[in-house]
Amino acid sequence: MASSDATNIECSIRREGDEYVINGRKWWISGAASHRCKVAILMGKTNPEAATHLQQSMILVPLDTPGVTIERALPVFGYQDREGHCEITFTDVRVPASNLLGQEGGGFAIAQARLGPGRIHHCMRTLGAAERALELMCRRVVDRTAFGKPLASQGVIQTWIADGRMEIDQARLLTLYAAWLMDKVGNKAARTEISAIKVVAPNVALRVIDHAIQAHGGAGVSDDTPLAAMYAGIRTLRLADGPDEVHRMVIARRELRRFAEGDADTWTSAGDLGSAR
Amino acid sequence: MASSDATNIECSIRREGDEYVINGRKWWISGAASHRCKVAILMGKTNPEAATHLQQSMILVPLDTPGVTIERALPVFGYQDREGHCEITFTDVRVPASNLLGQEGGGFAIAQARLGPGRIHHCMRTLGAAERALELMCRRVVDRTAFGKPLASQGVIQTWIADGRMEIDQARLLTLYAAWLMDKVGNKAARTEISAIKVVAPNVALRVIDHAIQAHGGAGVSDDTPLAAMYAGIRTLRLADGPDEVHRMVIARRELRRFAEGDADTWTSAGDLGSAR
Amino acid sequence: MASSDATNIECSIRREGDEYVINGRKWWISGAASHRCKVAILMGKTNPEAATHLQQSMILVPLDTPGVTIERALPVFGYQDREGHCEITFTDVRVPASNLLGQEGGGFAIAQARLGPGRIHHCMRTLGAAERALELMCRRVVDRTAFGKPLASQGVIQTWIADGRMEIDQARLLTLYAAWLMDKVGNKAARTEISAIKVVAPNVALRVIDHAIQAHGGAGVSDDTPLAAMYAGIRTLRLADGPDEVHRMVIARRELRRFAEGDADTWTSAGDLGSAR
Amino acid sequence: MASSDATNIECSIRREGDEYVINGRKWWISGAASHRCKVAILMGKTNPEAATHLQQSMILVPLDTPGVTIERALPVFGYQDREGHCEITFTDVRVPASNLLGQEGGGFAIAQARLGPGRIHHCMRTLGAAERALELMCRRVVDRTAFGKPLASQGVIQTWIADGRMEIDQARLLTLYAAWLMDKVGNKAARTEISAIKVVAPNVALRVIDHAIQAHGGAGVSDDTPLAAMYAGIRTLRLADGPDEVHRMVIARRELRRFAEGDADTWTSAGDLGSAR
Repeated sequence: MASSDATNIECSIRREGDEYVINGRKWWISGAASHRCKVAILMGKTNPEAATHLQQSMILVPLDTPGVTIERALPVFGYQDREGHCEITFTDVRVPASNLLGQEGGGFAIAQARLGPGRIHHCMRTLGAAERALELMCRRVVDRTAFGKPLASQGVIQTWIADGRMEIDQARLLTLYAAWLMDKVGNKAARTEISAIKVVAPNVALRVIDHAIQAHGGAGVSDDTPLAAMYAGIRTLRLADGPDEVHRMVIARRELRRFAEGDADTWTSAGDLGSAR
Repeated sequence: MASSDATNIECSIRREGDEYVINGRKWWISGAASHRCKVAILMGKTNPEAATHLQQSMILVPLDTPGVTIERALPVFGYQDREGHCEITFTDVRVPASNLLGQEGGGFAIAQARLGPGRIHHCMRTLGAAERALELMCRRVVDRTAFGKPLASQGVIQTWIADGRMEIDQARLLTLYAAWLMDKVGNKAARTEISAIKVVAPNVALRVIDHAIQAHGGAGVSDDTPLAAMYAGIRTLRLADGPDEVHRMVIARRELRRFAEGDADTWTSAGDLGSAR
Repeated sequence: MASSDATNIECSIRREGDEYVINGRKWWISGAASHRCKVAILMGKTNPEAATHLQQSMILVPLDTPGVTIERALPVFGYQDREGHCEITFTDVRVPASNLLGQEGGGFAIAQARLGPGRIHHCMRTLGAAERALELMCRRVVDRTAFGKPLASQGVIQTWIADGRMEIDQARLLTLYAAWLMDKVGNKAARTEISAIKVVAPNVALRVIDHAIQAHGGAGVSDDTPLAAMYAGIRTLRLADGPDEVHRMVIARRELRRFAEGDADTWTSAGDLGSAR
Repeated sequence: MASSDATNIECSIRREGDEYVINGRKWWISGAASHRCKVAILMGKTNPEAATHLQQSMILVPLDTPGVTIERALPVFGYQDREGHCEITFTDVRVPASNLLGQEGGGFAIAQARLGPGRIHHCMRTLGAAERALELMCRRVVDRTAFGKPLASQGVIQTWIADGRMEIDQARLLTLYAAWLMDKVGNKAARTEISAIKVVAPNVALRVIDHAIQAHGGAGVSDDTPLAAMYAGIRTLRLADGPDEVHRMVIARRELRRFAEGDADTWTSAGDLGSAR
């Protein structure tokens, strides 16, 4: 998960002879809590004076390198996932120069290249979770009786189910459309559509899961169903990799640009969104 | 617009020799306020004792036939459209038997056949209106300054624009999908998808239009923009041809049927949705 | 209704001997469409160079004074109220100097003094309308049958009624609280509470009325019930006298000021909200 | 937390000589996970054949009585509170007859008597949490910069803050009103107002907390702030002690009763709400 904390991208990678020396702090390093995690792909600044998009590089860092300290695992809501997210500090960590991925200053370009596909992948998984929650809700309400009739016969619950179906189907079509667009016109041209599904998918899923929790009563918030854990995991996706609010800004600005080619600067002056996350 | 009033479908069409005699009251007869409107296609009961889906027939009624009275034009919000909706009474109206469309009892089948395409047509027009409202909002906020900067630079307004774009795109994809499905598997199999767009499109459009109104200030509620009239017209689509609530029921029931084939009757016992509108 | 259009407060009032000469354009002059309306209280700038809060004055202008032209009546969602809003131009309109209310530059102070009570009055009327809509909805659904049972027995409709009751009661209590506060600590100290009810009351009322329209079907959007007209009238209150968005800003800023006394300027620099409406 | 599971109130309390014998299963027994918890107040049926409101009794059960088994602690969104909720089985548990609270069949009356005050207590705590979340959000956004200016200057975030303030103030006034009403006219007459705050308070708090989480980024979902734990805890309050949906039904029915004294049975036939939870 990309941190909302600026220090995350302030990590320093300095060349010294045949090595790079790394200093910095990172958090929300997904998977780092797992014993199976051996190598990190670290992004940091090789050249803080370069143009914004040329400051960052990516480099491989074996987690057993001296100076790498896993400070703590980060829980999500109350869940402490064994494969979960960690906060890690890097203090004078030295790795061979050959560990650099691509060229110095190429980190931002690599990140951009994998961002689109990565987001689509997340959206597909998120909508899968939403479908599962909808199915769990349906099975529950068909099965369960209150006030002498199945919950499934209650109009309010039917509304939850119908809204879930309509929202999931729309989100799925938008995701397929963004994926198709990425194939046809490329990552960059599909940028706003990718921002759109990045906002839409988790929000749809959270609404469906919340209704499913409500339909399950106490079982919904405990671990008798996977719903609460799904909610917690997907709630992070409204923050990770750019919060909803930044992606809405991206979408709005492209829309507005159609109507004010010349004056766009006045409302896009906030600068490079990419670097500010 | 289909009335929410039961009398609308209680109209009687009785055979007498070579004629049919029509008695009843209809409202929300769209277009009847126009001087160009000469003939009505009337739906009524030729056989109240038949099975529900065989009671109704359709018949052509020239509006200048004796016994046809246009009681009043129906305004929508304050709009009295010259091509708008009327309430009409039919008192011993006699037309030749050859005016019957198809066969006696075939009215419901005709209505069903044209309902799907009709709804898709309405959704396409509705989304066109939503696009127009979004464009009007963008043009306005790019143009207009408050607190020393263009409205377009306000985060709240950018949220309206981004949400509008995301919702319209999703609704459009769902409409295209429903249309594709209707072509591929037919009207009946696409029933729930058609119900879905019937709910989604007007609600999306109303949200976008309402934001556009807000962005226009006083001009938005007056006739200096088309927004208020668009709002009024599209608000009726949440009622016409089955209210949102009935369509949500249709969608929920198909969803639930996947999980309780045998017991479905307990929560679908409300009867024939078609005839109760 | 205060216009969202800046020209509304740009009207010029210039002293010439024993008279004031007025030039400008005003719209949303409520009540001006009525034949009973004889005198306008006009607000305009006697001194554009003074401090913001000392530029404006109020003056009495008989509507039959030469130079006063009622350009047009402004409809609201198609409704052309006989007692409604007008756009009026003032071209070299001369009135005796004694028509000035209070002192030159005192207009803003007068406006502020009556703004609080005026808003509370509007909120009380708005909540009265919401109560009426809730009652109309209840009467309708108790009376009307669909799918073999009264609409009142549908869970979705019960949700509308319960939400209406909860929202109206909360809005009423907040309005009473703001009124009590105005009595106790004065207009100015109660400023944010008055902003709060200014936002809350119309939004609550619109939600209740919209549900009531939906419960009435075609009768809800036509003039067979007062609902559509109530909706149109109250929709203007989200714009008039400062749009929702400006009042939310006022509320947020007071809240934030508690936590950042020193730095408040950075997020309150947008200037005098009052003058920018 | 009252279980949504019917078995919770199906516990049997049978008289045998000088003892009562208890058999059943209970879950969401709050506080039972604590080592300080020594005695349970158990509610169960002493007479399953009596009228609904006379079937239940309350009895004291020391947790070290043979036959009492704490089956497991129930997590809430991953949080395993050391003072939290448990599932407990009672198998031929024998306690002295003198452990009965009040009289046989008096359990429902005792529960009703303490339900109102208990709910008001919960609402007050819930609104306290909402205030705290609002304060945490304000402190965070005043402190934190993105795109070159404090988050506090963003319109979207100001909207969250303003909405939070307006919703909390309204919910607090409604809670105070319900408490005042309970004092003046009693528990029973204030029933719908108590249902109203039972619905309003947790929903308001969850909205505010969710916005506060969003404003905190990664810190919001981890344990670096109390927000995620607050969210989890308060989410249960939409289920505990009657879900939102049942309380809305209670409110709607009282409202409807004003308009259809005679026919109320048709839409209130669902039976005794109290006993069906």
